[in-house]
Amino acid sequence: MKKGEFSFIGDIATLFSALPHHGFEPIGDDCTVLPMGDEALVMTTDMLVEDIHFLRGASSAEEVGQKSLYVNLSDVAAMGATPIATLLSIALPESAQGEWAEEFMRGYHTVAEREGVALAGGDTTASRDKIAINVVAIGRAPLANIKRRSQAKVGDAICVTGKLGISSKGLVDIMFGDLNTEAAKAHRVAQARTKEGVWLGTRSEVHAMMDISDGIASDIKHITNLSGVGARIALESIPTDYDIRYATTGGEDYELLLTVDKDSVESLTTALYEATGTQLTKIGEITEGSTIEWLENGKPTELEMKGFTHF
Amino acid sequence: MKKGEFSFIGDIATLFSALPHHGFEPIGDDCTVLPMGDEALVMTTDMLVEDIHFLRGASSAEEVGQKSLYVNLSDVAAMGATPIATLLSIALPESAQGEWAEEFMRGYHTVAEREGVALAGGDTTASRDKIAINVVAIGRAPLANIKRRSQAKVGDAICVTGKLGISSKGLVDIMFGDLNTEAAKAHRVAQARTKEGVWLGTRSEVHAMMDISDGIASDIKHITNLSGVGARIALESIPTDYDIRYATTGGEDYELLLTVDKDSVESLTTALYEATGTQLTKIGEITEGSTIEWLENGKPTELEMKGFTHF
Repeated sequence: MKKGEFSFIGDIATLFSALPHHGFEPIGDDCTVLPMGDEALVMTTDMLVEDIHFLRGASSAEEVGQKSLYVNLSDVAAMGATPIATLLSIALPESAQGEWAEEFMRGYHTVAEREGVALAGGDTTASRDKIAINVVAIGRAPLANIKRRSQAKVGDAICVTGKLGISSKGLVDIMFGDLNTEAAKAHRVAQARTKEGVWLGTRSEVHAMMDISDGIASDIKHITNLSGVGARIALESIPTDYDIRYATTGGEDYELLLTVDKDSVESLTTALYEATGTQLTKIGEITEGSTIEWLENGKPTELEMKGFTHF
Repeated sequence: MKKGEFSFIGDIATLFSALPHHGFEPIGDDCTVLPMGDEALVMTTDMLVEDIHFLRGASSAEEVGQKSLYVNLSDVAAMGATPIATLLSIALPESAQGEWAEEFMRGYHTVAEREGVALAGGDTTASRDKIAINVVAIGRAPLANIKRRSQAKVGDAICVTGKLGISSKGLVDIMFGDLNTEAAKAHRVAQARTKEGVWLGTRSEVHAMMDISDGIASDIKHITNLSGVGARIALESIPTDYDIRYATTGGEDYELLLTVDKDSVESLTTALYEATGTQLTKIGEITEGSTIEWLENGKPTELEMKGFTHF
C-alpha cells in the first residue's frame, strides 16, 4: 500500500468483478489496460491530498505540481507504454486559489512539456481548507509491448533501474528540517523512467515490470503473488548510496523493477545503457515457491520491515 | 461553471495548447475525445468534495456513491457514447473509513451494475477530515456518432430531454430542511440519460449535444460560443413542473441539451420516445449572431440570472 492508503473494502474487486468488463483487463497492474486491436491504452489514477501526501510548508507548489504528474507517468512507463495525455482534477481552498495554483500549474506544465504529454481534460473545484489533486495518466503502446506484473518466470533475473533509497532518505531529511538536501529535493519532485519504460516495453526478454513506489520489499510481492513464484534478493546487490533500509522499504523511488530472461541480462543492461544512459542492476532471481528470501553476502537474513512512520 | 468551480488560471488551455496533443481533440466538450481509427474513446473526470458538493448530514453515503457516478456517465452520454468503465479515487478521513465507505461503494455499485460499466481502476487514500472523490468515466462509440458542442447550425431547433428544474428545486428543499421531497431525492442522486445519449448519437439530424449541469441559461452559451451562433429560447416551452428559475438557472438536472435539424424535430421526437420512453421538447432555435434571446409568450424578456447561493 502506498503512503496514506488503506483497504477500505477488502473485496471491492469481487463486488465489481461480476460486471461487464468491456475489454478492460482485471485490476492488478500499475495501470488498467484496454486492448484495442493491435494497440493498447493504459490508464492510471492517483489522488494526492494535502497533509497526507505533501505538506504545504515543506513542498513548494511547483514541486507538488511536478510530483503529482511524475508519479502517474511512472505508472504508465512501468507498463511499457508511452504517456500521451493526462486529466487533472484539483480542489483548492481559497488560500491556494491564487499564487499556489499558478505555481502548481507551472510545475505540472514543466513536466508535461518535458515528457510531451497533453492535458486532455480536467476539473477545478473549491474545497473547504485542504488541497486535493487527482491525476489520470493515459498511455499508448503496441499491445505486444505491454508488461504486466504476472509474467515473471522461474529463473528470471530480478533487476532495477538506477539507484534506490534517495526518496525515503529525503523524506527523513525533511522530517528533520533539512529541506535543501539533494535527497529532500528528489523526494519532493520524484521522477518517472518514461524513456526506459517504453524502451524496455519493446524487449521480449523483459517479462514482468512495475514501478517502485512502496519499496522493493513490498513491491516485489506484487510480482511474486501475481506470477505464482518466489524471489531471492541479495541485499549487497541493491544499488544505493544510502542506508539499505531506505533502499528496500522506503518507497517513492519510482525506479523500475523488472524480471528478465536470465541469459539476456548482460546484453539488455548494455543496450539499455546505450539507449537511455540508465544503469540496470541485477539484484536477485525469481524462484519456485512463493517466499521472498533476503540474502546478505550469501547468508539468509531478515529484512527489518517496519518501514516509515509517514507524516 | 459548476457548483464550487472557479477558473484559477484563465488560460491553462493556452499554456498547455502548445504541447503535443497525441490525437486528443481540444478541450471544450463534456468529455475529451480520442479518435482511434473508426472508433473514439471519450473520457471525463470530475471531483466531488465534502461540504462543497455534498453534505454528510444531508446526503447518505449511498446517494453520494450514486450521484458521483451518474454525473460522469451523463457527460459520456452527452457525447453520444456508451459508458464502458470508470476509475474511482477516494480520499477518506478516519470517520468515513468504515460504514460510510461501504455504503458509498454500494451506491456506486448499484449504478455501475444498472448501467453496465466496469470499475477498471482506482486509488484509495486517507485524508485529514474531509472526503474527496474523483471519478473518471470512459465511453466508446463509432467516431461518426460523437456529438460536440460546436456543431449547432443556424435554424436548428434547440431541444431538451425530460423535464428541467427538479434538482435545483430539491436543493432548495434541502436548504429548508425538507430532505424527503421527491425533488430533494432527485438532487441527491442525480441521473444520466445514457440510453438516450447513445441513441441520439446514432442520429445524423442531431448536430450539437451536451448535458445540462449548470442550467440551460448557462449551458446554452457553451453551444453558441463554440458553434459561432446565437439562440432564441421561449420560456413557456421549457418543460418543467417547478418555478421557471429552477428550470433555467438552477442546474444539475443532467438532462440532454441538443440542437436538431429543424425539419426532423417531429420525427426525432417520436422515434426517441419509441426507443427510450423519454420525451424530447423543442424550446427554441439557433439564430445568426451571438446573443441569447429569451422570449415569454413571444415578447423579449430578461432572464433573472442571479442563480443560487450554493451551500
